[in-house]
Amino acid sequence: MTPVTIDDIRAAAMRIAPYVHRTPIMSSQLINTEAGCEIFFKCENLQKVGAFKARGAHNAVLKLSPEQLAKGVATHSSGNHAAALALAASHFRVPAYIVMPENAPASKVAAVRAYSGEITFCEATQAARESTLEALCKRTGASFIPPYDHPDVIAGQGTTALEIAEQMALAPDVLLAPVGGGGLLAGCAVASKALLPDTLVIGAEPAGADDALRSFHSGQWQPQPAPDTVADGLRTALGQLNFYLIRDKVDDILSADDATIIRAMRLVWTRMKLVVEPSAAVGLAVVLSHRQRFAGKRVSIVFSGGNVDIDTLPW
Amino acid sequence: MTPVTIDDIRAAAMRIAPYVHRTPIMSSQLINTEAGCEIFFKCENLQKVGAFKARGAHNAVLKLSPEQLAKGVATHSSGNHAAALALAASHFRVPAYIVMPENAPASKVAAVRAYSGEITFCEATQAARESTLEALCKRTGASFIPPYDHPDVIAGQGTTALEIAEQMALAPDVLLAPVGGGGLLAGCAVASKALLPDTLVIGAEPAGADDALRSFHSGQWQPQPAPDTVADGLRTALGQLNFYLIRDKVDDILSADDATIIRAMRLVWTRMKLVVEPSAAVGLAVVLSHRQRFAGKRVSIVFSGGNVDIDTLPW
Repeated sequence: MTPVTIDDIRAAAMRIAPYVHRTPIMSSQLINTEAGCEIFFKCENLQKVGAFKARGAHNAVLKLSPEQLAKGVATHSSGNHAAALALAASHFRVPAYIVMPENAPASKVAAVRAYSGEITFCEATQAARESTLEALCKRTGASFIPPYDHPDVIAGQGTTALEIAEQMALAPDVLLAPVGGGGLLAGCAVASKALLPDTLVIGAEPAGADDALRSFHSGQWQPQPAPDTVADGLRTALGQLNFYLIRDKVDDILSADDATIIRAMRLVWTRMKLVVEPSAAVGLAVVLSHRQRFAGKRVSIVFSGGNVDIDTLPW
Repeated sequence: MTPVTIDDIRAAAMRIAPYVHRTPIMSSQLINTEAGCEIFFKCENLQKVGAFKARGAHNAVLKLSPEQLAKGVATHSSGNHAAALALAASHFRVPAYIVMPENAPASKVAAVRAYSGEITFCEATQAARESTLEALCKRTGASFIPPYDHPDVIAGQGTTALEIAEQMALAPDVLLAPVGGGGLLAGCAVASKALLPDTLVIGAEPAGADDALRSFHSGQWQPQPAPDTVADGLRTALGQLNFYLIRDKVDDILSADDATIIRAMRLVWTRMKLVVEPSAAVGLAVVLSHRQRFAGKRVSIVFSGGNVDIDTLPW
């Protein structure tokens, strides 16, 4: 039995519709010329909280029972998932407990606070995060909503590809989504294989954090020892559940180096006038790095988010 | 007789439709909360060549006779109008002669070249620009398309407000457009007064280049001696034709200082994930500077463009 089906994704889409944006698909003739193919960018940088994470967080929160919901939700994250979970909880006026490392950037702390998330700081180690979260859930009764390796979160992220299938007049030849923890890619692959059977699904990963690529090609889940990439949203290790879904449903994973990711990000900022974070530019960077694979094709690329510190840009 | 009527603007809209984008209107709940009103941003930063200038340039080029068109078009500009005119000419494979000062920024030169504009450099004085352009038009027979003070250009820019009237389910209480040379504000005022009779039309100007504000309030065209503002697209002097249209059709002109313009620009980048140039942020800056004037109202603001050098940001 598949842990996430197209029916789960359709149900998620109905569930989250009142709370998230149906984001537009945008194109740029200048970028098409530069890339040698026709690209349709799904703009999740324009999503609530500035990232696709709003989809999975809302779906997971909305699937809780009233009794569970009343006690609130919790997670450990310093990124977009934390802000997304805080926003989802705020609709129901229940607490979102967010465990963050004490060295988290001020901008991330501010984002979670802006959505009324209750932050508990801990030491900047994985062990401290997990033990702090566990104690917090035990004390409050809050439900832990993990950032990516959970069926409800994956189904929520998969609604991105459901919308792509609905919004595109002609099916794309390729759907490209970035892969970090793997929730977006896994969810999109399930939706795409059900709705766009002739579309290749390809994961886009930074060369400096390519555990999904190595796992996919070896057929065995590989750890991510020391990620080193400008794409801060994709430094996380591939989730184990996501690994199995990706192994079954995804056609390939390709990587791009940081120089090309930054070049792609600059192209989007200057040509499309859209603020995308480095992780969101990895799909375009993969196209620019593997031109022959995409030449002349119709390519749908997910811009995963737009949360970037505009005072410290990578150029 | 009015030099630009709603019929001119309707005709311009039909004429330019195949060549320009119908840009979206976007909103941000976070910015609405910050501003204390409901704002609908017309995203001309997502327009062809990254600015509303594509509208006026296309309309003026399309109104030329075949004989005129064959000899090409010319202008003196170092900004968005030059790129817009080059793009418009390129559709018909006729030359666009652009006179630019020899100290023009490399990014502006590159933008004009990207659309195959033929650049003639001259000394960085108004006299040198005008004499170089005149000699060039005499030699080539090209038609001079001025950047703002021309009925066909004004009618083209007015299509922005025509689209706002069509796209908004409920009429806005206020329409705010930035004013530099005045073509956008004049054209939008003509369209708005015809189609949205209950909507106030207000110009937004940087305090450091407030000739339109002074002209409007004194009822006499005032020169712009030494503009000093971060909003580089609005340093130009108000056109005389635009002055008369604005005096007749616009309800008020308000200004904002550079610090507020930069704050507004940062808000748009971080909250809306849209790249806007400083000039495009002046409308929001005016709302933030005159909160009581806009409190609780439905406000439509034109984001005039998104062409900014991302290596030298004003923060």
